[in-house]
Amino acid sequence: MNKSIGIFDSGIGGLTVFAAIRRALPNESLIYLGDTARVPYGTKSAETVIKYSIQNAHFLTQRGIKALVVACNTSSAYSLPFLRKEMNIPVHGVIEPGVRAALAASKTMQIGVIGTPATIASNAYEKSLKEIKPSVRVVSQACPLFVPLVEEGWLDNEVARLTARNYLESFCEKIDTLILGCTHYPLLKSVIQDVVGKDVILIDSAEAVASDLKNDLSRQGFLTGDGMRSELYVTDLPARFEAVAMNFLGRDIPLVKRIEL
Amino acid sequence: MNKSIGIFDSGIGGLTVFAAIRRALPNESLIYLGDTARVPYGTKSAETVIKYSIQNAHFLTQRGIKALVVACNTSSAYSLPFLRKEMNIPVHGVIEPGVRAALAASKTMQIGVIGTPATIASNAYEKSLKEIKPSVRVVSQACPLFVPLVEEGWLDNEVARLTARNYLESFCEKIDTLILGCTHYPLLKSVIQDVVGKDVILIDSAEAVASDLKNDLSRQGFLTGDGMRSELYVTDLPARFEAVAMNFLGRDIPLVKRIEL
Repeated sequence: MNKSIGIFDSGIGGLTVFAAIRRALPNESLIYLGDTARVPYGTKSAETVIKYSIQNAHFLTQRGIKALVVACNTSSAYSLPFLRKEMNIPVHGVIEPGVRAALAASKTMQIGVIGTPATIASNAYEKSLKEIKPSVRVVSQACPLFVPLVEEGWLDNEVARLTARNYLESFCEKIDTLILGCTHYPLLKSVIQDVVGKDVILIDSAEAVASDLKNDLSRQGFLTGDGMRSELYVTDLPARFEAVAMNFLGRDIPLVKRIEL
Repeated sequence: MNKSIGIFDSGIGGLTVFAAIRRALPNESLIYLGDTARVPYGTKSAETVIKYSIQNAHFLTQRGIKALVVACNTSSAYSLPFLRKEMNIPVHGVIEPGVRAALAASKTMQIGVIGTPATIASNAYEKSLKEIKPSVRVVSQACPLFVPLVEEGWLDNEVARLTARNYLESFCEKIDTLILGCTHYPLLKSVIQDVVGKDVILIDSAEAVASDLKNDLSRQGFLTGDGMRSELYVTDLPARFEAVAMNFLGRDIPLVKRIEL
């Protein structure tokens, strides 16, 4: 089907998901919306996150999309049921794919989840893990400083290392799999891996979403071959946007347009 | 005059200003608006910061105020001329009082300024310092991780110390006075003082604004004696609001109401 795939996130963290989908589906057109004027969602109330998510989804559906990917964990945790009721296209969150990948990887069924305060408070990962595998043991930890660290570009220095130790050291002996429940966190992968130890498997849900989406579109016969075209929209253009986006995408950044919601 | 003093900030950092005004003017009624749904301003564009600031000011003037205090450094840097044109009451920013206090304190006229990326990029402190004292030498540094550290409550641990060293160590030998150009930073005072050394004078603009405001209202005969009444409004009520607010105000938090802008 000759329509785009729509992706939204509270900001630019979802560009890890954008990049994974671009790798998995190089012939699809993608429209990405980053709500940079209202970032972060991770510290906001459920009500506000749902309202903003619906506005973002409407912007993308007005442009004609065949599938919607909610690349923000906080938004996936709170707004997925509302979006699925309002939209008549498939809506993919980042939580379910991450959960299935973690359950497939874990041997001890002792799984860790890290994310923003709002994602962890929503309990969405634990609920979703236990729905599929009731016997699983879940340990959760909010890591509010990880997002600002990534946006500062401190991906592998002493502050990043010490912050990771503060958050993770207490629970890393109890788990064999750790879900990176925030799209920013894959950029801290090497620091996180060092702290939790090399035997703990890190689950990056961007990869899991991209693979789910590919299977889904293919099953429905919705894949297209019209060549790749990317559009990036943001609700605000902060001073360091390009520098931060380059941490996520490398030098291959599509043209960015600013819109009002 | 039997009207309130209006104070707004992008979030709750301005509560340091609220607290200072409450101490300086214990008989005045205060209305505080924290735009917590759209925090932080420090990473947004000038255009967006100005738009939000005007909306915040309108909310407060609709409630009848005799003076407006812009407790946010980023907003003071960008929106003060626009607010002064639109409002027919005195508008106080946090930059000018901090600048005057720093110039009064410094002996070497080598002054440091730290703030959010937007405040530092605006060059507002440097411009204002040089307007009054053209010979002053100014060294500036953006410290984007300080706000999340304060909101996490890591006010005096190893991560806070290391972060402060990363940001400040290179310039602290060149200055004798350091302006804390963000309302969150006074909560990191002891860590910052340790890094820059005890001989550097730290300027907390909350105190300077409160004292300026008191002089102004008294000169105009606008002080009132109707007893203190405080109202706190926020545009979103995040999960940890009370815990974070207590870091700023202690246990004495007025009733908080949530509004839409």
